[in-house]
Amino acid sequence: MRALITGAAGFLGSHLCDRLLQEGWEVEALDNLLTGREENLAHLRGHPRFHFRRHDVTQPVEVPEPVELVLHFASPASPRDYLRNPIHTMKVDSLGTLHTLGVAKRYRARYVLASTSEVYGDPEVHPQPEEYWGHVNPVGPRSVYDEAKRFAEALAMAYHREHGVDVRVLRIFNTYGPRMRSDDGRAVPTFIVQALRGEPLTVYGDGTQTRSFCYVDDLVEGVYRAAVADGLGGTVLNLGNPEEVQVRRLAELVRELVGAQVPIVHRPLPQDDPRRRCPDITRARRLLGWEPRVTLVEGLRRTVEFFGRLR
Amino acid sequence: MRALITGAAGFLGSHLCDRLLQEGWEVEALDNLLTGREENLAHLRGHPRFHFRRHDVTQPVEVPEPVELVLHFASPASPRDYLRNPIHTMKVDSLGTLHTLGVAKRYRARYVLASTSEVYGDPEVHPQPEEYWGHVNPVGPRSVYDEAKRFAEALAMAYHREHGVDVRVLRIFNTYGPRMRSDDGRAVPTFIVQALRGEPLTVYGDGTQTRSFCYVDDLVEGVYRAAVADGLGGTVLNLGNPEEVQVRRLAELVRELVGAQVPIVHRPLPQDDPRRRCPDITRARRLLGWEPRVTLVEGLRRTVEFFGRLR
Repeated sequence: MRALITGAAGFLGSHLCDRLLQEGWEVEALDNLLTGREENLAHLRGHPRFHFRRHDVTQPVEVPEPVELVLHFASPASPRDYLRNPIHTMKVDSLGTLHTLGVAKRYRARYVLASTSEVYGDPEVHPQPEEYWGHVNPVGPRSVYDEAKRFAEALAMAYHREHGVDVRVLRIFNTYGPRMRSDDGRAVPTFIVQALRGEPLTVYGDGTQTRSFCYVDDLVEGVYRAAVADGLGGTVLNLGNPEEVQVRRLAELVRELVGAQVPIVHRPLPQDDPRRRCPDITRARRLLGWEPRVTLVEGLRRTVEFFGRLR
Repeated sequence: MRALITGAAGFLGSHLCDRLLQEGWEVEALDNLLTGREENLAHLRGHPRFHFRRHDVTQPVEVPEPVELVLHFASPASPRDYLRNPIHTMKVDSLGTLHTLGVAKRYRARYVLASTSEVYGDPEVHPQPEEYWGHVNPVGPRSVYDEAKRFAEALAMAYHREHGVDVRVLRIFNTYGPRMRSDDGRAVPTFIVQALRGEPLTVYGDGTQTRSFCYVDDLVEGVYRAAVADGLGGTVLNLGNPEEVQVRRLAELVRELVGAQVPIVHRPLPQDDPRRRCPDITRARRLLGWEPRVTLVEGLRRTVEFFGRLR
């Protein structure tokens, strides 16, 4: 069994490589290392079933041998990263999706698209079920990611309908854990690094906006089940932790876990920042028998440990 | 003054070529003739300022000399056409937009994107102002057009923000007139051709859904003003006729104008067909001093005459 994975050196991609290898897959791993990091894959160097190539998926994608599974996980994913690379992000999610769908079509491989809760934009329905069409500003600054991922979903579905490609669209909600970048601008690593350094924790807005945070091991379990389950062609699935937490509460938790005596300071909310986002995972529960297991406190503890070791 | 126009052999594109030539422009016209037709440009053959090339804009776009204006009007645009060519439609609106934005960036040319009222999807707000974010199913059958155009808008805005390209995004509502294809599946040509043939007029659903129909001369006037006005970089503009008409009423009007004694028959509504769509053109009125002038009856009369001559 051979899988192609793009974004392999990223946070989620690298954990997925680990899981695929554990399950016995041969892994063709691609990453252009724009936001991914080679050190995330350092422990796999020399693994007999692991083959890494530095490649930008906005360029045509060739694979040396047939694959049974394609996982398209390449894309800047944090607002800081995609706002720094807006056009490149749009190319990865359009050209990269096109190229990797082409591989899946050629080899009749199963195709897993890493989509995002951002396709729901600033939702007016809580929690968000997969049937919800979302609330996205097509010409706002975040549209370079939101609309690009909606485009990728539509393209994957078009390949499913027109060419019979067995696609699974995964709408991944906020996920955290070891191997996140300390500088990607997201709440969990930012708070942890600030607390470890004894700096004030910066909360955007008043901190009453909520997020749902899924620990990476849980997320990877969901992705893997979605990839290997039969009969899911053309299915859209939310994957995330439905437990909501206010951003301010998250900051307080991190501060406690690190044991730092630092203040929490507030900064203005960026444009189009969603007030609230929370997955309805009824469908994933039903189709995959999946739900998150790791509590926020436990997941944060492991993540704090990871960032502590890096210092 | 030299303009590049894609989709030049299409319904809107060919009328725009006429207008640009009238105004003294040199016109580089591209079309792959998938849904456009050479006969729409037959009268321009041999025109000293008109240069047509058959070219698919999903392939890189080269222009022989610098241009000051790029009008990206290539794309299947009727539901029948884009549902027959779903993946090609998505490529035109992503790759084609990318390639033509590249031309505009290279030559510091103004860029006009032909977007569509379909970016509003099945709207929950009437009439639709440009600020409305829309209501689109990202994975439904129509998403191959709706999401592709939203992607194109987001990409144009990214080029505006990142590279300073002077883009104008035009959300074009239903337009009708001479040179529409009789077989594109849209209401006006379908009804006219049916009436001229003495066949029953087919209305989808009960016909109480409304549309707003803009006569092509009015629309071209709006596009041209939007292209030449100064200080509109990064502006989104609705262009269309705000007068709403029920689809059933349209069928009756056509029947009267043709003088056909034929019944009106009903067929089931397709999936995700919008109930209602109507532009709020306050912004175009204010910024361009533009509004439609041709009444529905007058526009239909001219269109009936066009289709009558073709028989």
